[in-house]
Amino acid sequence: MYRTHTCGELRKENIGQKVTLCGWVQLKRDKGGMIWIDLRDRYGITQLAAESVNTSAEIVAKIDSVGREFVVQVSGEVIERYSKNDKIPTGDIEIKIEDLKILSESETPPFTIIDNTDGGDELRMKYRYLDIRRNPVKNALMLRHRMAQEIRKYLDAQDFVEVETPVLIKSTPEGARDFIVPSRMNPGEFYALPQSPQQFKQLLMVAGMDRYFQIVKCFRDEDLRADRQPEFTQIDCELSFVEQEDILNIFEGLTKYLFKTVKEVEIDYDFPRMPYVEAMEKYGNDKPDIRFGMTITDISENVKGKDFVVFDSAEYIGGICLPNGSEYTRKQIEELTEFVKIPQIGAKGLVYCKYNADGSFKSSVDKFYTEEDWKTIAAKMDAKAGDMILILAGEKERTLHGLSELRLRLGNELGLRPRDTFAPLWVVEFPLLEYDAESGRYHAKHHPFTSPFEEDVKLFETDPGKIRAKAYDLVINGVEIGGGSIRIFDKDLQALMFKNLGFTKEEAEAQFGFLMNAFKFGAPPHGGIAFGFDRLCSMFGGVDSIRDYIAFPKNNSGRDVMANSPSVISQAQLDELGIKLK
Amino acid sequence: MYRTHTCGELRKENIGQKVTLCGWVQLKRDKGGMIWIDLRDRYGITQLAAESVNTSAEIVAKIDSVGREFVVQVSGEVIERYSKNDKIPTGDIEIKIEDLKILSESETPPFTIIDNTDGGDELRMKYRYLDIRRNPVKNALMLRHRMAQEIRKYLDAQDFVEVETPVLIKSTPEGARDFIVPSRMNPGEFYALPQSPQQFKQLLMVAGMDRYFQIVKCFRDEDLRADRQPEFTQIDCELSFVEQEDILNIFEGLTKYLFKTVKEVEIDYDFPRMPYVEAMEKYGNDKPDIRFGMTITDISENVKGKDFVVFDSAEYIGGICLPNGSEYTRKQIEELTEFVKIPQIGAKGLVYCKYNADGSFKSSVDKFYTEEDWKTIAAKMDAKAGDMILILAGEKERTLHGLSELRLRLGNELGLRPRDTFAPLWVVEFPLLEYDAESGRYHAKHHPFTSPFEEDVKLFETDPGKIRAKAYDLVINGVEIGGGSIRIFDKDLQALMFKNLGFTKEEAEAQFGFLMNAFKFGAPPHGGIAFGFDRLCSMFGGVDSIRDYIAFPKNNSGRDVMANSPSVISQAQLDELGIKLK
Repeated sequence: MYRTHTCGELRKENIGQKVTLCGWVQLKRDKGGMIWIDLRDRYGITQLAAESVNTSAEIVAKIDSVGREFVVQVSGEVIERYSKNDKIPTGDIEIKIEDLKILSESETPPFTIIDNTDGGDELRMKYRYLDIRRNPVKNALMLRHRMAQEIRKYLDAQDFVEVETPVLIKSTPEGARDFIVPSRMNPGEFYALPQSPQQFKQLLMVAGMDRYFQIVKCFRDEDLRADRQPEFTQIDCELSFVEQEDILNIFEGLTKYLFKTVKEVEIDYDFPRMPYVEAMEKYGNDKPDIRFGMTITDISENVKGKDFVVFDSAEYIGGICLPNGSEYTRKQIEELTEFVKIPQIGAKGLVYCKYNADGSFKSSVDKFYTEEDWKTIAAKMDAKAGDMILILAGEKERTLHGLSELRLRLGNELGLRPRDTFAPLWVVEFPLLEYDAESGRYHAKHHPFTSPFEEDVKLFETDPGKIRAKAYDLVINGVEIGGGSIRIFDKDLQALMFKNLGFTKEEAEAQFGFLMNAFKFGAPPHGGIAFGFDRLCSMFGGVDSIRDYIAFPKNNSGRDVMANSPSVISQAQLDELGIKLK
Repeated sequence: MYRTHTCGELRKENIGQKVTLCGWVQLKRDKGGMIWIDLRDRYGITQLAAESVNTSAEIVAKIDSVGREFVVQVSGEVIERYSKNDKIPTGDIEIKIEDLKILSESETPPFTIIDNTDGGDELRMKYRYLDIRRNPVKNALMLRHRMAQEIRKYLDAQDFVEVETPVLIKSTPEGARDFIVPSRMNPGEFYALPQSPQQFKQLLMVAGMDRYFQIVKCFRDEDLRADRQPEFTQIDCELSFVEQEDILNIFEGLTKYLFKTVKEVEIDYDFPRMPYVEAMEKYGNDKPDIRFGMTITDISENVKGKDFVVFDSAEYIGGICLPNGSEYTRKQIEELTEFVKIPQIGAKGLVYCKYNADGSFKSSVDKFYTEEDWKTIAAKMDAKAGDMILILAGEKERTLHGLSELRLRLGNELGLRPRDTFAPLWVVEFPLLEYDAESGRYHAKHHPFTSPFEEDVKLFETDPGKIRAKAYDLVINGVEIGGGSIRIFDKDLQALMFKNLGFTKEEAEAQFGFLMNAFKFGAPPHGGIAFGFDRLCSMFGGVDSIRDYIAFPKNNSGRDVMANSPSVISQAQLDELGIKLK
């Protein structure tokens, strides 16, 4: 061992001890005869000190030669610091340098290794091994480690078995977003990388494993939206002989356990549950942030038939009530109007009505509506004097989306979305099917093995879009943390499902063949859930981006800018794999 | 929840309780009016009982209709069994069936779900989800789970941080055994799947993570020798500011901890350490099974110059002493002779000398050697009256290999290799370099970052093959469980190493560029180790094959016979990836 202690552990109690530390030079200060070095390792920072006159010339020369990020080994006595630093746990002591050895030199790093670095994103990614030396990234990875350990501890105690499923799996004709891997031993044939271990975890239930989990890499070869990664990590689980209620309870338990052990946040209430339809109507969103109110009210019937053609011609008119918004200036309202007009929202305009402190109303459409009209609307929306009502109109789905975006923006502006407040929520009763206008048929919203509510099965005949699925999402602070479903294990129901999804027997066989075969030999009732682990970590870390919670992430083009990957390969390699470039 | 209890938990204390169980029908017995069902789940087997006369006709009809591997839900009272079964923990009780619901039917499984199944390997793999229902496979996966949890617990307590390294990494020109993955977003470019996270774990040390571990999938696209898998799992670790001694201690500690917690085997001694040279000389093998003796003795100088041309012309003559072997029959000796002549061993013949119980010697080469000669040899080999000396001669390396194989075979025959005895061993001081006759130059035996012994560095000039590396393997019962090395972190030594390996600067840059760049910014002294997790599990399970310790293994052609993968992909997919088949 090169050291007796780490740079994070020496305290007052160690004063007088001879110690040896190793680490990176964070900072060197030279003040007329006294030199201090801040020595850093994963565990902390310890101050080293040398007084030129009392230190050998050889050592002084060495100290002189070390620069930032040099790796050194230092021996000396732990002494009490003259001016203490109460910001770090080692702040009471310093090491009187008696010997110093340079283990490795360092070029000047391309950015400074401090919490608020001067390195831009691209530079940080290129030198990720330096970026990880910085506390924010290091702590993010440590948090991820802690969470992984606690997740396994909880699930292990609940009788879950960790099973590794294959990474080289079958490529399916419909696997358009699969990464594929040519097989050298089987020329012309390919493996795929799993988008999720879905079929394997269901097979494990057929295999009687009862409760399965895995913290597992999954892969998706698609254009990366902001903050998506081609490889990402899931906490993947499946259970037998359970109903939806059991799964929600167990994973609500996991979430509470993690908040408690990792964040020391106690959540002592049941997570609220909200049907999908309610989430859409009230929040315009299937992952509502319920840290704050300002929910949406459908005021279509209150505003139609008053000769305002914009509302009269709209499918839907909805509003949100901005607390204490009556004092908003024209400029502020204009900004909100510009916001709802951006292409991602696409509203034609924003109607407002100020409910003044004196009880009067002032709206942008006073021509069409009376005080009485507004009083009724204000009552319906639970608006109070001093508030402002904001209204969007148009096609229903799009308008709800717009109101949702407006609500979230105002929530941010008003400081109603604090990072250290956590509002978990189960969204339940998702629709089983989703109508796809392009293909003119229904698709499975989740996947084709998701079980419908028994009492809704009859709707296959009349109104498939209304069938509710035993599917659920865990949402925290408006972020989808994970989701899952109870699976169909009855083969007649499965056949009905495939029929309604427009699968021929052959297509179903090609895509789900080995799972369907397995179901012939006694499938237990089962269901599961998967959490996005990268996202869960960043949520716990209070950060929006998942990138710093991944040690070596890729950029938005799927590139590792550090290794410069992907890259070209040699003709010989292509030949051996039996493929060529087009 | 479909059940109140599992099939493994009911005991005498539960008698009188109303319970509901779920599981698979293992067995049904019908004995004139009484019907018993063995109901199985992951946790055990519970007997169900129904007396026709006291059971409703509807339930009796249902019981009649269930067959093997049907999934049923049964409710009833826990009653005392008339004839107890002390082989299972639930053997004192049974459930008096009051209600039974068939959850899933099953076709007749292609093999019986019992410990000693009638299913052949291929069939078991095709229906792996049924195979896993069998105890041996289920228990293997449970053992693997337990080991994974305990490994993490130990390493976490030792300040190791679990960091996920990427699966989509850079393909290098020399990565001939890499699986490669075409990138849709970067046409003409490819990722590779990691053969190990070697470079990433070293980067994490440069990044200051201090102690890293991961239980991680690795990939190798090569012809599969028996019991190799294209994807396999490693316990991968790296540590900073440590010497070889520290790593051996920590991972000896891990191994002992696992033996104790998982196998209840206490190993209360330090693992012996054996230099590579000694392992080769004494065991003919760099992974000696030290559960038994019968070590090899070099008797070249004792047998040469006696006019026996076979020995006189041989580079090396070595022998092993077979205890109590003097009674071996001619037939037994002939079998051994045939054995050493198989192509994998390739000896020309086997010379033997019986050291008879009466003290006389009888050899197959009595023409050339006297009693006195044999007495000297016997003394050197520590042979006793009643033993037999077995001798091979020829090219040294090949002969040692032959003696090793002969020794292991005899060890098996004599029952000297019991599965429940564990003999761990560190093999140390591996050669740094290996001479490759074909290319006429030295290659790194481990990898080019492996550190040589300081005192051997001068041998680069004179005798590179003699340079010892700070590399080590953990061997248990003759099986290599893992290995690692202290890495070079000094750039001058690294340059010397590359030079001696015949790398140009450009080649080194192409293959190890981003790691070498990282080393410019302060690399700590570091080293690591990796254990083969599949192998470690099968060792703990007392089984030679790793296959049953992998949930969904591939066969020797890299095929998943269950999913029938790899498989062809569509032209559209190939087009989108910008590749075509040759």
